[in-house]
Amino acid sequence: MAAKETMTAKVMRTLRQYQMLPPKTAVLVGVSGGADSTALLHWLALHAQQLDISVAAAHVNHELRGAEADSDEAFVRDLCAKLGIPLHILHADVRGEAQKTGEGLEECGRRLRYAFFYKICRQYAGSRIATAHTLSDNAETMLLNLARGAGAKGLAGIPPVRENVVRPLISVTRAETEQYCREHGLLYHTDRTNADVRYMRNWVRLKIVPQFHRIDPNFEEAAGRAACALREDDECLRELAQQALRTAECLGGWRAGVLAQQPAAVRMRALYSAARSAGTGRLSRQHLQMLDHLLAKGGGCTLPGGCSARVERGILLFPEPAEGYAVPLQMPQTSLPNGRILCIQTIPKEKIPKEIRKCVFSNCLDYDTITSDTMVRSRRAGDSFSPAGRGVTKSLKKLLNEKKIPPSLRQGLVILSNGQNILWIEGCGPSEQAKVTPRTRCAAVVTIKECIGNGKSDAR
Amino acid sequence: MAAKETMTAKVMRTLRQYQMLPPKTAVLVGVSGGADSTALLHWLALHAQQLDISVAAAHVNHELRGAEADSDEAFVRDLCAKLGIPLHILHADVRGEAQKTGEGLEECGRRLRYAFFYKICRQYAGSRIATAHTLSDNAETMLLNLARGAGAKGLAGIPPVRENVVRPLISVTRAETEQYCREHGLLYHTDRTNADVRYMRNWVRLKIVPQFHRIDPNFEEAAGRAACALREDDECLRELAQQALRTAECLGGWRAGVLAQQPAAVRMRALYSAARSAGTGRLSRQHLQMLDHLLAKGGGCTLPGGCSARVERGILLFPEPAEGYAVPLQMPQTSLPNGRILCIQTIPKEKIPKEIRKCVFSNCLDYDTITSDTMVRSRRAGDSFSPAGRGVTKSLKKLLNEKKIPPSLRQGLVILSNGQNILWIEGCGPSEQAKVTPRTRCAAVVTIKECIGNGKSDAR
Repeated sequence: MAAKETMTAKVMRTLRQYQMLPPKTAVLVGVSGGADSTALLHWLALHAQQLDISVAAAHVNHELRGAEADSDEAFVRDLCAKLGIPLHILHADVRGEAQKTGEGLEECGRRLRYAFFYKICRQYAGSRIATAHTLSDNAETMLLNLARGAGAKGLAGIPPVRENVVRPLISVTRAETEQYCREHGLLYHTDRTNADVRYMRNWVRLKIVPQFHRIDPNFEEAAGRAACALREDDECLRELAQQALRTAECLGGWRAGVLAQQPAAVRMRALYSAARSAGTGRLSRQHLQMLDHLLAKGGGCTLPGGCSARVERGILLFPEPAEGYAVPLQMPQTSLPNGRILCIQTIPKEKIPKEIRKCVFSNCLDYDTITSDTMVRSRRAGDSFSPAGRGVTKSLKKLLNEKKIPPSLRQGLVILSNGQNILWIEGCGPSEQAKVTPRTRCAAVVTIKECIGNGKSDAR
Repeated sequence: MAAKETMTAKVMRTLRQYQMLPPKTAVLVGVSGGADSTALLHWLALHAQQLDISVAAAHVNHELRGAEADSDEAFVRDLCAKLGIPLHILHADVRGEAQKTGEGLEECGRRLRYAFFYKICRQYAGSRIATAHTLSDNAETMLLNLARGAGAKGLAGIPPVRENVVRPLISVTRAETEQYCREHGLLYHTDRTNADVRYMRNWVRLKIVPQFHRIDPNFEEAAGRAACALREDDECLRELAQQALRTAECLGGWRAGVLAQQPAAVRMRALYSAARSAGTGRLSRQHLQMLDHLLAKGGGCTLPGGCSARVERGILLFPEPAEGYAVPLQMPQTSLPNGRILCIQTIPKEKIPKEIRKCVFSNCLDYDTITSDTMVRSRRAGDSFSPAGRGVTKSLKKLLNEKKIPPSLRQGLVILSNGQNILWIEGCGPSEQAKVTPRTRCAAVVTIKECIGNGKSDAR
């Protein structure tokens, strides 16, 4: 009984400390069927009345482990039925999706999971997503990030709160959630991939954390204290970096002298934030040191994502990459930074010509594949693409080589994409996933107008 | 050859980056005879002319491992002779000293070692001490401190520079120093206690770091990057904490409202610094949270080292503990905070009366045991003492019980100590180590004048 009360006391303290679930909150709990999420769902169901919150559950069947995944789903259905908790279920073809996007299975699964949770939550204003991340997960994340050479933000592990996602179990170890399940006669499933040490997180959990337990049986608590302190540090320094950027801001950039006066910890964060807001890819410490060098010495450097930085007449600038851009798709017209205009015209199912169905016209795609997240952008290093009807996925570079499109024109090609998932490429047509099929309910016809110079319009 | 050049390049970069050894510096290298310090000494000797520095070595024989320690000493003597480097040697009875002070062997050895290095260095203005701490040591320290739940300062590992101590090998792994030794035909000794996993550091080195190498063979470099970023963070935040303290300072304390406005990362460091300057013992995060609570709510709390804190009328105060104090010894008179005056009168060898030699007078001790570090202080929890002529070390509490000194008088007893090493206690006399012997060159006679109230003088 003592351990159960301890977990409850810890969760209550966590909820209070971070104001995770104020009264009247609708909370959606991500439930895999493992000990952590089973304990979390049960605990929240048990305390819903006391906390004055309403609880729903969401389960994603990743379809990666065949019968095991189906058995997990059945288990979660059963659990929710017993607890009287409404359940949302998504069947996601993670393997197929990851193959399309080039993501890792874990990364892809996480993305689909959170997208599903967010989608449900959008229906309820002020609702929150609760995930079952524990103090043990936090320690593992800290160690993984240490092995990556991360700074305070990464070493601080899993944030207890991020936007509307909350982690009520962040002060509770995995051993405690398992204990809770035993005490409440709760069965739970154990994902057998948890034992697979080819996943780095499993390696950390199975090979490294037990060695720390020999130094301190309460290692996770110690790591958690370190995480709290580092999170405080990082939040404070990021705020100072934002203040420094506001002070340094000027037309087209930031005054290098103002940034150069900042202490290194603030300067590095300001440079990171400025570069990221200019659309660069992820920056390493080395990139930040290059930028820092520019502040002192002037000159220029290149950055990930085809971007560059320059200090000119005392101003830090991130020039637009040559014709490189990414803007949200707008219907029916999207103005591109290079002066072109992308137009989309929709054709309902019954009016789609046979030629479009047969994929003869490379300027058509399935309108339903276009989402609110779809971007219009130029090509990026590492882009890959699955051209409709070819049954292959290739690097875009290889594809453009095959098509003998001259390098000087390639940066100018217009791309429609959802995240890393390219739907359509100017001159190449739709992807396998986005092509018009007999099931297409509505087709989208893409036209690009050239509006620079003489204003001639060139429909393709 | 490549590895050797790499180590040289890395050391050169480190020396430049931290301005460790500017031209004309006299540097004293701590040499144990292991691969790291052998490589460091050899490298510095080889580059002394190029760097325009002069190099000397210091070796401490800890007398802990019998013949092995003597063989290490002989090895270092031989190495220095071959390199033409002057060598300072100290024989330290670490076990005996640790028994006296109650320190661990490692802790005591480190204290004696640094005291020896500092003592030599005081002879040369602007000189530096170089220790052979490597990037591998740094990663181990970071992991040990993570297991202790340390914040940014501890997680940042070993500082490349601390006062006049520099670590030229802090960017070089142990594997690289061993490689350097092989390439230069340098023999080195391996301390067999390095394999003893009962020492936590060895556990980390032998059981934890190799598991990280499976994630990233360059784990130490990754950890080093993290350390650099954390050190920058901590330095910046400590400076902000000092600024906040200066702003908040007022008669007798600090304005709580000013401190309360600071972000948590700055506030916690300001509270730590304020409390430590008021003479508290080491504070945990929990203590800091208690202090933080005082800022918001007022009231008081107790702190380690017999100290306490209070917020009264908006002022954060650390009241003097009841009669508790520690002040540096001044010759010939030291005024104590409670109004008493401690006087020391010296008696040269030839004038020391027989009674003093026989230790009849409990107010005498060997003058040579008094150093510039000697403090006059009240008793502290955990004090232990080895009374002269008794052949035992006891907790002071037990000793005062035996002597039937009433508890109400105990806090008022005057103590002379070097660090944790008590030389003399009012009413108990000198320690075994500090007693007057036939070898004593000069005796010190302690007198305490009571100057409160009627100003009566009471010699003991």
